[in-house]
Amino acid sequence: MTQTFFSRLQPGMRLELGSYTFEAEAIKTFARQFDPQPFHLDETAAEQSHFGRLCASGWHCCAVFMKLYVRNGETALREAMGWTGAMPDRGPSPGFRDLKWLRPTYAGDTLAYRSTLLAARASQSRPGWGLMQSEIEATNQNDESVMRFVSTVFISTR
Amino acid sequence: MTQTFFSRLQPGMRLELGSYTFEAEAIKTFARQFDPQPFHLDETAAEQSHFGRLCASGWHCCAVFMKLYVRNGETALREAMGWTGAMPDRGPSPGFRDLKWLRPTYAGDTLAYRSTLLAARASQSRPGWGLMQSEIEATNQNDESVMRFVSTVFISTR
Repeated sequence: MTQTFFSRLQPGMRLELGSYTFEAEAIKTFARQFDPQPFHLDETAAEQSHFGRLCASGWHCCAVFMKLYVRNGETALREAMGWTGAMPDRGPSPGFRDLKWLRPTYAGDTLAYRSTLLAARASQSRPGWGLMQSEIEATNQNDESVMRFVSTVFISTR
Repeated sequence: MTQTFFSRLQPGMRLELGSYTFEAEAIKTFARQFDPQPFHLDETAAEQSHFGRLCASGWHCCAVFMKLYVRNGETALREAMGWTGAMPDRGPSPGFRDLKWLRPTYAGDTLAYRSTLLAARASQSRPGWGLMQSEIEATNQNDESVMRFVSTVFISTR
């Protein structure tokens, strides 16, 4: 009997999505476009702020999650499941829950991102589709948790 | 008797944060950096996807909220409250709840962002500080809701 990809999803499965070092220039470039607050734009201004040092926009930390997820998510999922078949269709993400920025990400910090599967269940509203719910976490080089949220994506159950 | 800024916050208060048109080039530039999926990168590939047309990364829609909030939030808040005094200190955002991407944002769409104050309460853990909880919503040029989330920020009660 052939098992579907969906039926093989195991809550607790953990995927390492890779890491990214937030260099000062990248922090400032993102901030100039999307979050031009002094502590994301300029070292001296950051020293005078409650952060004390140049640090990345929380949205920059989110965007880097997406970058790593797109680049490494499928490979990590295949490896964790020992899956070599075709990947099931995936739908759009309806959103996320409970995003927490727990600590600043300072210039030079390296964040490692991982995803832990919380649940996989059939969708009530879309036959043939299931919902994968995962906790996403980023930790810095001191193994401190800096960001956490719960992500949901649609995935084919076929 | 002088009222503090914090004590004058009224749930239901609505702030218009401005609008932004998602041009195809900006959608692709964001996607190349942070969300390189075919339907965010290329018109032809997008036509063959479940979206049907080039559309913006959900994280791009979030980042543009931040851009408009930084640019226009303070002015909108002053106007809504009739406040001409000094602005209270604001702390970092501890995070967001319940982000929903309700509809795609297609190339050429213009999103208008607004914030509605849900609650303002004193912080239990940080004396002298309060928490402002707001619903953020973006609607497109057809007045359809495309994104919604609940934001929380620390603000001085003094």
